[in-house]
Amino acid sequence: MEYRKIKDLEKEGDTTQDDIEESHKKSLIASTSTMSGIGGSSANLSKWKLKSMVTIALTVLTSSQAILIVWSKRAGKYEYSVTTANFSVEALKCALSFAALLRTWNIEGVTEDNRLKMSWDEVNVYPIPAALYLVKNLLQYYIFAYVDAPAYQILKNLNIISTGVLYRIILKKKLSEVQWAAFIVLCAGCTTAQLNPSSDHVLQTPFQGWVMAIVMALLSGFAGVYTEAIIKKRPSRNINVQNFWLYVFGMIFNAIAILTQDFDAVMNQGFFHGYSLITACMILNHALSGIAVSMVMKYADNIVKVYSTSVAMILTAVVSVFLFGFHLSLAFFLGTTVVSVSIYLHSIGKPQR
Amino acid sequence: MEYRKIKDLEKEGDTTQDDIEESHKKSLIASTSTMSGIGGSSANLSKWKLKSMVTIALTVLTSSQAILIVWSKRAGKYEYSVTTANFSVEALKCALSFAALLRTWNIEGVTEDNRLKMSWDEVNVYPIPAALYLVKNLLQYYIFAYVDAPAYQILKNLNIISTGVLYRIILKKKLSEVQWAAFIVLCAGCTTAQLNPSSDHVLQTPFQGWVMAIVMALLSGFAGVYTEAIIKKRPSRNINVQNFWLYVFGMIFNAIAILTQDFDAVMNQGFFHGYSLITACMILNHALSGIAVSMVMKYADNIVKVYSTSVAMILTAVVSVFLFGFHLSLAFFLGTTVVSVSIYLHSIGKPQR
Repeated sequence: MEYRKIKDLEKEGDTTQDDIEESHKKSLIASTSTMSGIGGSSANLSKWKLKSMVTIALTVLTSSQAILIVWSKRAGKYEYSVTTANFSVEALKCALSFAALLRTWNIEGVTEDNRLKMSWDEVNVYPIPAALYLVKNLLQYYIFAYVDAPAYQILKNLNIISTGVLYRIILKKKLSEVQWAAFIVLCAGCTTAQLNPSSDHVLQTPFQGWVMAIVMALLSGFAGVYTEAIIKKRPSRNINVQNFWLYVFGMIFNAIAILTQDFDAVMNQGFFHGYSLITACMILNHALSGIAVSMVMKYADNIVKVYSTSVAMILTAVVSVFLFGFHLSLAFFLGTTVVSVSIYLHSIGKPQR
Repeated sequence: MEYRKIKDLEKEGDTTQDDIEESHKKSLIASTSTMSGIGGSSANLSKWKLKSMVTIALTVLTSSQAILIVWSKRAGKYEYSVTTANFSVEALKCALSFAALLRTWNIEGVTEDNRLKMSWDEVNVYPIPAALYLVKNLLQYYIFAYVDAPAYQILKNLNIISTGVLYRIILKKKLSEVQWAAFIVLCAGCTTAQLNPSSDHVLQTPFQGWVMAIVMALLSGFAGVYTEAIIKKRPSRNINVQNFWLYVFGMIFNAIAILTQDFDAVMNQGFFHGYSLITACMILNHALSGIAVSMVMKYADNIVKVYSTSVAMILTAVVSVFLFGFHLSLAFFLGTTVVSVSIYLHSIGKPQR
């Protein structure tokens, strides 16, 4: 697999192989102290605090993201081009990472771990997640020939399963039996919470629709797990350097998307046509959540990311009740119960060593 | 609580206290070998076989019971009086237990454990489950003033939680953290599988409706747990003797129900008015499932009974697809997934000793 390629390249390098092993040890220690919160040393405790902080940030940002989307739809302002918005998000993330780096250089000076320059051997895997997301986003246009929007919403929960499976296969990290069971009920619980009268359409999905949905789930899961592999490969490397390169390639691939899909519109109407205050808020929010995802990959893992996104989905629904007068269904309560128990099971079901 | 009363009475008796302790030891051994199926000695294995057999019998009988009800409704034959049918079920169970006893006496002769005569101290708790069911059935008439039929169907799943809680409190048997979590998702999963477009009515249930639903769940859970306490109190006592006395009191309490509710109808139209072949099948099925419930109480426990009933609910729906052309909803698949994972979690989550 691709992750093996990273490992093989490492061996040709200098000290980075030890880095990986060091990282494995650290993550073992971290996973013991995490979730339960009963860390041993103060180093574990501060790592646990960092992990909790980035996870909470991701949860809050993701839930406010969905609320901003509903808000912008309600305001009827959805006239901007999605590809230019995506490009702006990548550019903003890149700028923010660079700003953080400037600050670090001022304080610590330029070191081996925080300098921007990377060897080709290290940087050549950075375009892969962005490329995978581009393919996934292109597929998204075609899947609607086979499934309608409510069914697609349901099928997206396959991401949970694909992330778990690829996490196990590619990163070779173990989940206990209880944690696997928790992950399956998490997927069922999230889907249950999103049930609405048109959800049953998903049962009429034709074979091609299922195949595309599964391929998209695998692409998305693979991109996430691969990002974690890249970021965890050199734990000592400053996260802002890693982010900078990830987002540079994000900009490049989103530029390709603009050229292939929205070139005429951008040429005729301008890059920022249809942007409003709310569009700017959404771009800022997406940029911050993107950075939070990277932080979760660095200090936690894809499993924590999936749980965080699931909790965000529930928070969004609850907040929408107050903001937009949404009604919560019985299915939502049942799904929320199942998701909550899943989180509990994940935390008590740590693998025995 | 009432169970303490049983224990106190025991102490005044002779050897039965040892019986209880013996039973606790046996059930500990049984619970180790059970579910996993990896029994130690051959005694454990045969106990495990017995437990599996009665559980499968209960599951099959319960699911065919629901199918018979649908069938009888479809055939439009629902004109018989429910109270006389309930009485007939108790009478048939009583007769079957007595027939089984006659056979035992022929083979083994009359012993201390299989003789019909019981001391007043032992028999005086036998009416309690039947009395509890009577109160619950009477309440059932009043709850419909506050909740409609689909909402009632949903609220009945509270039985699962009440059984778990009372099992813990009254029988003082421990479930592990994982098993508790499994039990909560079982309740959510069963409810999810039964969701239909009118299920959301349950969210409009007024306060009185909730109180009555919870009281009914507690009565039903208490009756189940109390029956287990009675049957397990003297493990050496022949199950048919125990059943005989339980069903004698069942007959008495159902006779009271006939007198108070259907006396005029029975007097004018006769006891068996409106009975058909399908009614007879239903009565036979109910009688056999009732005996299977007793067997599960003797050789397994209330938790196994709840899981068995949940699986029966799923089997009923699947069989109904073929028999009556029912459509399965997405909610059904999600609920079934959650129930299946719950069964898995219950089996791997045995309490550590």
